[in-house]
Amino acid sequence: MKTVHVDLGPRSYDIRIAPEAAPGKALERARVARALIVTDANVNPLLGDWCEDCLRAHGITSARCVLPPGESSKSLSIVACVYEEAVRAGLNRRGALVALGGGVVGDVAGFVAATYLRGVNFVQVPTTLLAMVDSSVGGKTGVNLPQGKNLVGAFYQPLEVTARLDALKTLSDREYAAGMAEVVKYGVIRDAALFDLLERRVGALRARDAALLEDVVARCCEIKAEVVSEDETESGVRAILNFGHTLGHAIEAAAGYGEWLHGEAVAAGMVYAARLSVKLRGFPATDARRLEDLLRAYGLPTDWRTAPGATSWADLRALMAKDKKTLDGMPRFVLADGLGRAVFGCSVPEADLEGVFAS
Amino acid sequence: MKTVHVDLGPRSYDIRIAPEAAPGKALERARVARALIVTDANVNPLLGDWCEDCLRAHGITSARCVLPPGESSKSLSIVACVYEEAVRAGLNRRGALVALGGGVVGDVAGFVAATYLRGVNFVQVPTTLLAMVDSSVGGKTGVNLPQGKNLVGAFYQPLEVTARLDALKTLSDREYAAGMAEVVKYGVIRDAALFDLLERRVGALRARDAALLEDVVARCCEIKAEVVSEDETESGVRAILNFGHTLGHAIEAAAGYGEWLHGEAVAAGMVYAARLSVKLRGFPATDARRLEDLLRAYGLPTDWRTAPGATSWADLRALMAKDKKTLDGMPRFVLADGLGRAVFGCSVPEADLEGVFAS
Repeated sequence: MKTVHVDLGPRSYDIRIAPEAAPGKALERARVARALIVTDANVNPLLGDWCEDCLRAHGITSARCVLPPGESSKSLSIVACVYEEAVRAGLNRRGALVALGGGVVGDVAGFVAATYLRGVNFVQVPTTLLAMVDSSVGGKTGVNLPQGKNLVGAFYQPLEVTARLDALKTLSDREYAAGMAEVVKYGVIRDAALFDLLERRVGALRARDAALLEDVVARCCEIKAEVVSEDETESGVRAILNFGHTLGHAIEAAAGYGEWLHGEAVAAGMVYAARLSVKLRGFPATDARRLEDLLRAYGLPTDWRTAPGATSWADLRALMAKDKKTLDGMPRFVLADGLGRAVFGCSVPEADLEGVFAS
Repeated sequence: MKTVHVDLGPRSYDIRIAPEAAPGKALERARVARALIVTDANVNPLLGDWCEDCLRAHGITSARCVLPPGESSKSLSIVACVYEEAVRAGLNRRGALVALGGGVVGDVAGFVAATYLRGVNFVQVPTTLLAMVDSSVGGKTGVNLPQGKNLVGAFYQPLEVTARLDALKTLSDREYAAGMAEVVKYGVIRDAALFDLLERRVGALRARDAALLEDVVARCCEIKAEVVSEDETESGVRAILNFGHTLGHAIEAAAGYGEWLHGEAVAAGMVYAARLSVKLRGFPATDARRLEDLLRAYGLPTDWRTAPGATSWADLRALMAKDKKTLDGMPRFVLADGLGRAVFGCSVPEADLEGVFAS
């Protein structure tokens, strides 16, 4: 069992990481008596009853709201359904929402928790690697609009996050690998030693070695907690968490969400960002190649030209201009000066954007 | 010109109250370049161009989103429309939403500001008496669900509030009187001297005397600012602002929103709360009668039996059980020990609830 503390003053909380980590402790402390578990149709048969039992052991009765799996559930109409389930479940201000699932479930349940009755208690029970190391930590919630991803949302911190590592055994190889993309990202942006470890232990990590995963997940959560504590609402350094995401989001938008998994699009986006970094920030070309090799070793795509959907430069560039971090049509990039040393807010000359894309 | 400071640490802001108070100053300071003005079809022809001009004078270009007037606009589908207008207007994180109108416009625009791109700048330009003294101050935003009022929302503070008193001249007598109900409420909950003033100056206030209104609106804002500073997210004393609202909300829900105006329902609800206070808290019966007389003097209803819609005790009691402040079906009441001395969180014996209703 590892515990990572996220230090956000009155909104501080712990992430507990263990093979059998279970939710409920923080809810009992907050005197929650009733919860709505939000999950999806993939996770529910595997972990729905377990989650209900965990809550019951802490004196909490729960109802369940099962979403269709996939990015299409991050919509305002699904949010409206969850609100109605919350009313039907009789949740009052002392109630709680529990997100049991991956990033989509966490985003939807978190947004509902942030806005139902102007905010109720919230707990994250991430079941994917991506959710454990990234989306469940830091309080970002989000819903898509027809015009773009995560255009609606709130910053809203959970009372606790419990990462049950055993759940990772149920992931497909592809979904597990997609989570590894975000793990690799932490190495690139803040921790060269983590990057080295990921290179050295490819075999064990691909085999989902439990003890190693506990260390790696905890280290990623530590880095994210550190960054988020410095900048809760992304007015500065928090932006480094978006390394690889500017092109990544554009690829996802062009392909239609779900064609490439988020982590796959981010993997290709990181290669792009690394090559821009070589060109503009003196990032060593050898390290850019190491990054590509590492992503490939985890079975991740590195070439944006192989992405599904419309991947012409013109299309992707237009989509990048819609990014939330864009100012006046000019995307701001997270680049790196070296492994472990990301910098944010970089503007990149138009010619380099296109030149590196074509390279 | 009067200025009331709302002290909320990093979220502090000023309310400016004057015949010609205009928005834009705080937005310019925050380097906002683009805004979406949210207003309704009643206010837009009167003040839409003026608001746009005010913003332009501070270097801000704006688009406009005009809602259908009335409570039915406080819906998730209208919120979705406003999000789309915000995208269409090209609002990025440095953009702002400007609420130009009454409580409904402020609630909808505020909720969108709290959640679009996880929160953008927000300014309130209240145009009704109710919005000036109550809904524009304190950061509550809200949207109704089919199951109940304000079940969705967020606490989100504006950058500034500018109350243009001249706008009050355009209100119907009925709408103006409804705003006076909340003014009277401030006297009852925190300021016996204000209550006295409202009694002494009925004529001048009914005639909308500009200088007197500036004083009265500012005093109400001061009281609200004081209470909100003590308890931003309504975990305690802020509840006193709901004096008269438990029955008031039930009347609104039973009648269908818009049958009785919010202030009218609150007026009747205050009489109910005052009589409960006489029975349970030693509130002087003479002061309960003074309250009834004062409300009548401003043309407000005081008898819940005259409310439109289903007003049987059973119906209203069932609606009260759905109130957000309800714990286990038992509504919590704000009562008063005397004029200016409200107490919150009072549980009231079932027999008294019904007995006073029938009295």
